Amino acid sequence: MDFLKGVGVSPGIAIGRVFLKEDIAIEIKNETIQNPEEEIKRFKDAIEKSKQQLQELYEYALKKVGKHEAQVFTAHTMILEDEELIEKVNEKIRTEFKNVEWALKEVTDEFIKLFEEMDNEYLKERALDIRDVTLRMLRNLSGIEDHSLVLLKEPAVVVAKDLTPSDTAQMDKDKVIGFITEEGGKTSHSAIIARSLEIPAVAGLSGITSQVKHGDMVAFDGSEGKVYIHPDEKTIKHFKEKKERYEQRIQLFEQLKNSEAITKDNIRLEVACNIGSPADVDRVIEKNADGIGLFRSEFLYMNRNDFPSEEEQFDAYKTVAQKMKEKPVVIRTFDIGGDKELSYLDFPKEMNPFLGCRAIRFCLERIDLFKTQLRAILRASAFGNIKMMFPMISIFDELVQAKQILEEVKESLRNEGIAFNEKMEVGMMMETPSAALLADLFAKHVDFFSIGTNDLIQYTLAVDRLNPHVSHLYSPYNPSVLRSIKNIIDAAHKENVWVGMCGEAASDPKLVPVLIGMGLDEFSMNPASVLEVKWMIRQHSREEMKAVAEQVLKFATADEIERFLESNDNIHLF
Amino acid sequence: MDFLKGVGVSPGIAIGRVFLKEDIAIEIKNETIQNPEEEIKRFKDAIEKSKQQLQELYEYALKKVGKHEAQVFTAHTMILEDEELIEKVNEKIRTEFKNVEWALKEVTDEFIKLFEEMDNEYLKERALDIRDVTLRMLRNLSGIEDHSLVLLKEPAVVVAKDLTPSDTAQMDKDKVIGFITEEGGKTSHSAIIARSLEIPAVAGLSGITSQVKHGDMVAFDGSEGKVYIHPDEKTIKHFKEKKERYEQRIQLFEQLKNSEAITKDNIRLEVACNIGSPADVDRVIEKNADGIGLFRSEFLYMNRNDFPSEEEQFDAYKTVAQKMKEKPVVIRTFDIGGDKELSYLDFPKEMNPFLGCRAIRFCLERIDLFKTQLRAILRASAFGNIKMMFPMISIFDELVQAKQILEEVKESLRNEGIAFNEKMEVGMMMETPSAALLADLFAKHVDFFSIGTNDLIQYTLAVDRLNPHVSHLYSPYNPSVLRSIKNIIDAAHKENVWVGMCGEAASDPKLVPVLIGMGLDEFSMNPASVLEVKWMIRQHSREEMKAVAEQVLKFATADEIERFLESNDNIHLF
Repeated sequence: MDFLKGVGVSPGIAIGRVFLKEDIAIEIKNETIQNPEEEIKRFKDAIEKSKQQLQELYEYALKKVGKHEAQVFTAHTMILEDEELIEKVNEKIRTEFKNVEWALKEVTDEFIKLFEEMDNEYLKERALDIRDVTLRMLRNLSGIEDHSLVLLKEPAVVVAKDLTPSDTAQMDKDKVIGFITEEGGKTSHSAIIARSLEIPAVAGLSGITSQVKHGDMVAFDGSEGKVYIHPDEKTIKHFKEKKERYEQRIQLFEQLKNSEAITKDNIRLEVACNIGSPADVDRVIEKNADGIGLFRSEFLYMNRNDFPSEEEQFDAYKTVAQKMKEKPVVIRTFDIGGDKELSYLDFPKEMNPFLGCRAIRFCLERIDLFKTQLRAILRASAFGNIKMMFPMISIFDELVQAKQILEEVKESLRNEGIAFNEKMEVGMMMETPSAALLADLFAKHVDFFSIGTNDLIQYTLAVDRLNPHVSHLYSPYNPSVLRSIKNIIDAAHKENVWVGMCGEAASDPKLVPVLIGMGLDEFSMNPASVLEVKWMIRQHSREEMKAVAEQVLKFATADEIERFLESNDNIHLF
Repeated sequence: MDFLKGVGVSPGIAIGRVFLKEDIAIEIKNETIQNPEEEIKRFKDAIEKSKQQLQELYEYALKKVGKHEAQVFTAHTMILEDEELIEKVNEKIRTEFKNVEWALKEVTDEFIKLFEEMDNEYLKERALDIRDVTLRMLRNLSGIEDHSLVLLKEPAVVVAKDLTPSDTAQMDKDKVIGFITEEGGKTSHSAIIARSLEIPAVAGLSGITSQVKHGDMVAFDGSEGKVYIHPDEKTIKHFKEKKERYEQRIQLFEQLKNSEAITKDNIRLEVACNIGSPADVDRVIEKNADGIGLFRSEFLYMNRNDFPSEEEQFDAYKTVAQKMKEKPVVIRTFDIGGDKELSYLDFPKEMNPFLGCRAIRFCLERIDLFKTQLRAILRASAFGNIKMMFPMISIFDELVQAKQILEEVKESLRNEGIAFNEKMEVGMMMETPSAALLADLFAKHVDFFSIGTNDLIQYTLAVDRLNPHVSHLYSPYNPSVLRSIKNIIDAAHKENVWVGMCGEAASDPKLVPVLIGMGLDEFSMNPASVLEVKWMIRQHSREEMKAVAEQVLKFATADEIERFLESNDNIHLF
C-alpha cells in the first residue's frame, strides 16, 4: 500500500480519523484611525488579556506536561513585555495613525523576518514564538476565540500545518491519539511535547493538510514516519497488531518497576534519570528509577530576569534530594554560556558557541555565581544523597581550580557552622575528547565520571548534530566514540572510580548491551526509557557482552557496528 | 626604564624615530542638493577612480607582499560593486536630495554598524574594509590625496591609530623599520602583512598616538610587545645588542640554506612549506625548503565570481609542481564551507561553522566540483612530484567515498588517454579527534598522514581558538593533544605510512624536539620558519628526544610541559 514519508518524531502507533486543524484566517485591515490614544489603549488591553491567557496556559502545561515545556509561555510573556516591540507599535499608531492590528503586524513581521533570516534552528524557533504571540494578540483584538483543539470531542489524529506551543499545551492525551504536521522535525517544540505526552507523531510531511480532510482514516507508526491514508483492511490489521505489540511491550516494562537492574550474571547496575527541574522528579519516582544521574541545574537560571539566589537554589536541590530519599541525586553545576542565552546576562555572541565559553569555562570566569551554586548544593547535601559534577572539563587545570573553589566554599560553611555532607562525592562530566584522552589522570582526582555522549560525539566527530547538513555524520556507533568510552571506563576502574553515562546513548537499546560489556556502572536517561533499559540489563550478562564489546571495537564504521549489533544472536532486542 | 605594553605581533627589533601617521579629518557636510543626477554622476566617478586605485594597489601588493594579501583589494573592489550599497546611496540622493558624501556616509555607517555588532573577528574585519573603502571614496570626492605614508623619506617607526590594508600594502620595507598601532591584534590584517614583510610590529597599544609625536625616539621588540619611548642610553644599547643578536641569528639560519634537515643521529627529516597560491612558491624556493607540505587549494576559490575551471586549477597546480621540480608538493583538496564564505556559493549560515559542512563534507555533497578538482590535480601530477590529501576526514566512510571518486576520475582520464601519475601518493589530514582515535584503521588505506594541529587542538579541547573568551585554553602543549599526535605517528609507522605536520605546532621551537622524538617525518610551515626548524633538527638526535617525548606524555597540564621543555638541558633553543 502507498504511504507518505515524514519524519517519525514520537514513537507509538496511531490508527484513527483525521481532525484537520485549519488556520483561522484573520483579515488585517490597513486603516487610518482618528484617536491614537484609544488605539494604544486597545493594544494595552490586548496585551493584558494575552498575558492572562499565557499565565493560564503556563499553569496548565506545568501540570500536564512539565516545567521545561511550560516555560515557552514565560518566553511568550516576555515577548509581550519587550519594550522595543511595544514602543515601535505605539510609535506607528501615534505618528502614522495606524490601527493597532496593522501596526502590530508590521512590527512583528519585521522581527519575524529578522529571526527567520538568521538561518539557524534556535533563532528560527524564536520567529515561531513571535508568530504565535502575534496570532494570539490578533485573535484577542478581534474577539475570536481559538476553539480549534478544544472542539475535539472524539479521539482523533490531529493534522495541521504546524502546531504552536499554545496548541500542543492544550492537547488532551485522551483525545489526541496522534498528530501529523507539515513543518517541524525531531527537535521542534511540538515533537518534544509529543514525546513527553507519549503521543505518536510524524512531522515534516509537507502537503498533508491538502491531502486529507476531516474524518479520513489514517494510520502511522511514530517511530518510522510512514503515514497511510485510507489504509485498506490488511494495513489496518497490520497496524492493530503492531499497536498491540507496542502496548504489550509497555505492559511488560511496567511489570519491571519493582525489579532491580541486575545482569544475568548477577551484577547490580543502576538505571537513573536525567531531570531539568524539581517538577520532573515525580516521573522519576513513578518509574522507580535508581536515582538521578543528571540534574541539569541550568534550567533554574533560564526564563527569568536575574540569577537565582542561593536560597532559591538550595530549596530546589533540597526538594529533589528529599523526594529521592536515600537514592543518589547527581547535580551538574551550571552549563550556561554561548548557546543557552540568558536575557539578564550580557554575553558576547560567539562564532562557534559549542566551542566557546560555556559550562565550567563560564563558571571559572564568574566565580561569584559559581560559589553561590556550590554553597546551595553543599547545604542541600545535608538533606539527602547528593553528588555533584562539573561539566565540559577539557583541561586538567579546570578540575583543579573547580575543586579548589569547592574547598573554599566548604571552609566558609564550616566557619559559619552550616551543615553539609563532608563526604559528598565529586565527579566530572566526560564530554570532551581531551578529557577522554586524559581519563587516567583525571580518575585520580574524582569520585566518578559521567559520560555525556551528546557532546562527546559532537566534539570527537567535529559535528554539530543540530546542523542538518552534517548530522548524518553524527553517530554514537562510531568506533572512535566507542573506543573513547571504553578508554574512559577502563581508566576509571583502575582507580576504583565509578562511571555513569547521561547522554542519549545510555538508553539506546542496541548500545546498552555494549555498555554493559564495557563495564558501565550507571545508565541515566529520560524517565520514559528507564523500564526498557532495565529490561535490557536483565536480558544480558556482563561476561557475554564483554566479548561483544571487544568485537565491536574492531569495526571501522558506525554502520558495520549497528548492523553487527542488530544481527548478533547474543543481543536481545525487544 | 618605563615601557608601554602592547601585543607583539611581528618579531624583530626596531630602534628609531617616530613617524606619526595622523588620520586626515574629512569634514562631511549635510547638504541639500538641487541636481540629483549630477550628484549620482559624482558618485559614479568616485567609484571609478577608487576602483582604479585599488587595481594599482592590488598589483603593487601582489609584487611586494603576496597574492593572499593582495586579495584584500579585490574584496574592496567588490564592496564598490555591491549593488545594494550603490542602490541605497543613489536612492538617498534621489529621494532625499542629499549630497553624495552625506548619503555615502549614512549608508556605509549602517553597514559598518551591522558588521561591528556581529561581535566576531571575521565580520568585524569586514567593517574595517568598508571603513577603508569609504574613506578612500571620501578622499576621492574631496580631491584629497593620501600622501601620508608616501611622505616617509627617512627610515622611521610608523605610529598610527590603525593601519588600513591600503596603508600596509604601500609600506616600503626600507623606510618602515617598525610599526605600532593602537588597535588590532595578532590576527589583524596589518599584523599578517608585518610578518610577511618581516617588519617588527606591536599592536593594541591604546593611547600611543597621543603619547608620542613626530621625531620621538622609540625602541621595541616585536616579539615581546614592550615599547620604550625616549629610551635612555642604556636601553638603546640593550636594544642595539638585541638587534645584533637577532640579526646574527637570522644570518646563522641563512647559512643553513643548503644544509639538510638531518638529526644528530643522522636521520634525514623533511622541512617543507605551507602555501596558499602559486605566487608563494618563490619564497619556498628562496628558503630552499624540502617541498610543499600543504598547498591550500581553497584560495583559488576565493575572491572571485565563480568556481575556477579545471583548466585554471590545472595551470595553478602544474605551475607549482614544475617550479618545485622533483620536490614533493602536497595539494590539499578544498577546505571551503561554513567559515570560509564564497560569494558565488549559496551556503546556509551555520550555528557552529567549525562543526559544520566544510572541507571533505562539502566536497562529498558537491561531487561535481570535487571531480573537477581531482581531474586538475591528477593531470598536473604528470608534471612534477604531486601528492594529494583530503581534509577534515572524521569518519571512515568519507575516506572510502573520496578514494572511490578519485578512482572514477582516474578511470575516465585513462579512457580519455590523458596522462597522470598512476602512483601519485594519496593521504589524509589528521585534524579531528575521531581520525586520531582510528589512526590504526585509516593507516591501512593511505600513503601518508598530515597532522593539522590547528584544528586537531581546537576539536580535541573543544575550543574555538579565535574566541578571545576561551583561547587561553587552546594550547599545542596540552597532553591530550600530544598523546593524540603520538598515537597517530605510532599507528602510521606500524603500516609504513609517513607522517607530516602542517599546523603551527610544526614550527614551534619548543615542540620540534618533541616531534623529532615522536618520530615525525615531515615538518611543514610558513617559509619564514624553515631555517630555524632546520637548525633545531640539526641540534637534536631522535634517540635522545624519544626519552624527552616519553617524559612529556606523563604530565597533566600544558604549563608543566612547556616549563619542562624550556628548562630541559637536552633541548637547545636558540
